[in-house]
Amino acid sequence: MSAIITMTTDYGGKDAFTASMKGVILKINPQVQIVDITNEINPQDIWEAAYTLRSAYSHFPKGTVHLAVVDPGVGSGRRPIIVVTESFYFVGPDNGLFTLIYQEAERIRVHHITSTHYYLPSPGPTFHGRDIFAPVAGWLAKGIPSGNFGDEITDYVKMNIPAPKMTPNGIEGHIVHIDRFGNIISNITYKDILLLFPDGVDMSASSIGFAGKTIKGLKKFYAEAAPGEPGAIINSSGALEIFMYKQNARTALSVKRGEAIRLMVSR
Amino acid sequence: MSAIITMTTDYGGKDAFTASMKGVILKINPQVQIVDITNEINPQDIWEAAYTLRSAYSHFPKGTVHLAVVDPGVGSGRRPIIVVTESFYFVGPDNGLFTLIYQEAERIRVHHITSTHYYLPSPGPTFHGRDIFAPVAGWLAKGIPSGNFGDEITDYVKMNIPAPKMTPNGIEGHIVHIDRFGNIISNITYKDILLLFPDGVDMSASSIGFAGKTIKGLKKFYAEAAPGEPGAIINSSGALEIFMYKQNARTALSVKRGEAIRLMVSR
Amino acid sequence: MSAIITMTTDYGGKDAFTASMKGVILKINPQVQIVDITNEINPQDIWEAAYTLRSAYSHFPKGTVHLAVVDPGVGSGRRPIIVVTESFYFVGPDNGLFTLIYQEAERIRVHHITSTHYYLPSPGPTFHGRDIFAPVAGWLAKGIPSGNFGDEITDYVKMNIPAPKMTPNGIEGHIVHIDRFGNIISNITYKDILLLFPDGVDMSASSIGFAGKTIKGLKKFYAEAAPGEPGAIINSSGALEIFMYKQNARTALSVKRGEAIRLMVSR
Repeated sequence: MSAIITMTTDYGGKDAFTASMKGVILKINPQVQIVDITNEINPQDIWEAAYTLRSAYSHFPKGTVHLAVVDPGVGSGRRPIIVVTESFYFVGPDNGLFTLIYQEAERIRVHHITSTHYYLPSPGPTFHGRDIFAPVAGWLAKGIPSGNFGDEITDYVKMNIPAPKMTPNGIEGHIVHIDRFGNIISNITYKDILLLFPDGVDMSASSIGFAGKTIKGLKKFYAEAAPGEPGAIINSSGALEIFMYKQNARTALSVKRGEAIRLMVSR
Repeated sequence: MSAIITMTTDYGGKDAFTASMKGVILKINPQVQIVDITNEINPQDIWEAAYTLRSAYSHFPKGTVHLAVVDPGVGSGRRPIIVVTESFYFVGPDNGLFTLIYQEAERIRVHHITSTHYYLPSPGPTFHGRDIFAPVAGWLAKGIPSGNFGDEITDYVKMNIPAPKMTPNGIEGHIVHIDRFGNIISNITYKDILLLFPDGVDMSASSIGFAGKTIKGLKKFYAEAAPGEPGAIINSSGALEIFMYKQNARTALSVKRGEAIRLMVSR
Repeated sequence: MSAIITMTTDYGGKDAFTASMKGVILKINPQVQIVDITNEINPQDIWEAAYTLRSAYSHFPKGTVHLAVVDPGVGSGRRPIIVVTESFYFVGPDNGLFTLIYQEAERIRVHHITSTHYYLPSPGPTFHGRDIFAPVAGWLAKGIPSGNFGDEITDYVKMNIPAPKMTPNGIEGHIVHIDRFGNIISNITYKDILLLFPDGVDMSASSIGFAGKTIKGLKKFYAEAAPGEPGAIINSSGALEIFMYKQNARTALSVKRGEAIRLMVSR
């Protein structure tokens, strides 16, 4: 069985940061397969890393080690941690990056990494990705039990993530991500919408409002929308998404992450 | 023998799309080696995907599965297909993306993928890359015969690609690609040029016209051109290419894909 | 034991160049693991390639083959070479790209690649990455002795790299790299600074001058600097670096590679 380590970082693909981490991992564990989730997280954007990791992690084989490092507090007091769920390991800084994992996992165990003999010799203060997190991921993928790296903790850091609010005639959420195609993704999920329609979803009776625009109903697939018109859809992650067919909705509609989006029902 | 799957998509390297597909493949087939041809195809640009795939696919080992997904029609009627040639497998949407493969292959067999038990459970309407194409590629690389995925079809979609035209004193073609270095690549090949010179190619007797410019003769390598002067060359794929030494010819000459280019012979 | 080949090129991730090289390698050696250091070196920027390769190479397992191609002189007289050090192999053009390896290695042997039977059949004049360097790296990683590729040479090309100058009250260096985060990296190292302070480093007694700015003292980690204020630090490669916490120092300070930077001591 070959082990798999994924990487989610803001180190980019142009400097030597990411490759140095891969070298460190392969020196410890030459048989491991390393897969980039992405190294193009916007610098220091912990939310974007949390969101992207959440979108990808569950598709990997059981036992995969997900290494995630977006780490503005490197060298200061923040702790290095290992998160163990029923199916995966996560390695990275204790700065909230794993908040969405904590929400989704059935069982969680978090270890504060303190066994410095797994680190690179004399790690520097600025590149824990290479000096601490990469070697720990390499050893973990090689079979070292998570308990060997340090004691369990319960006061790990969680980001404060506003959930969508149910209102008498709808749901109020916000925009959590805009993807490469310019698709605008909200935190309103299909599960939330089901609650609105206890007798079966009737989207023709609903409209979506955001950035001064209103969209009626839901599309089933992108090509269904008229050219130049924004459409709404439940996307491949089960979230309410605004798109324009073969166009970049972000550019066309000038929308930013964090802005409000509302689903309203007319009964 | 380890199997290889390549990926050619417009999903980018920043979102979780590409990594989710890799996770799905590795869950089915943990021994497979996944190689990106590129995931940076311009959104929805089927031609660019077809061109880039054609430039790379033949260099891979026999038996490689080439997964290619640029798919504006996802969720609508377009069919998912497997293309089998004498040396390779191709998996993707039936929207013309494999047209250049159809042209180059000696033998072609195309299967309409209909065996839904190879899909991810309950695939959504918007991300067939992850839900249909990735698992099919994974199973195919694991040795499932292509016939198991669906019946053969003969009415698969081909793009209409204008070929260069031979004229009494030359060849008329167009620009098909501009690469990272700004090199401008035409659809005029060395084979076409050979037809013009039945008694042996004499490029000193010919000139290349495009975008109101004229270039005399052909260079053998890039460093042969004078600084600031555009040169013409037969590139590593056998195509007529315009370049500027250590400069970006696209920027310097303001040329776009699709523009006309002519090779003229003075006899 | 699985062999590893790394790649450092300016071929980018969007065209088929990089993937074609990987295909060629895997055809020769399907068991090899290929790791990108980066393919995003600025076009023809040999220094950037040399610097990035130097930052990453030593972290890989002993025996790794480092393939590096930034090659404006392709097709002209410049020689293809293999560099053998006590721990690694390097394959690429003899244009100075390996200068920093020559400086760091304890033992160096350089072979001029002339055994054309290891090349792809009839290589073209413009893409030696695919036609010469990739197959040579593939065969080398498969165990072919470096001597089989060609004779040893001693007149290999070295870039002229200005070293920092020690002055009576400080060190004069220059900026050698600016990374993805906008951190500004100099060629002044901690080893140089140790020479300045024979009785123990006291950075509170020193200041760093560049681009008309002055910074007092050194920080231990990034989060220690006040928002909006540039800080100096010894980075993870042991070099003096200017940064701004959670900001892009390059943009904020308008600094360019090559500019002077001085460390001054007040005694």
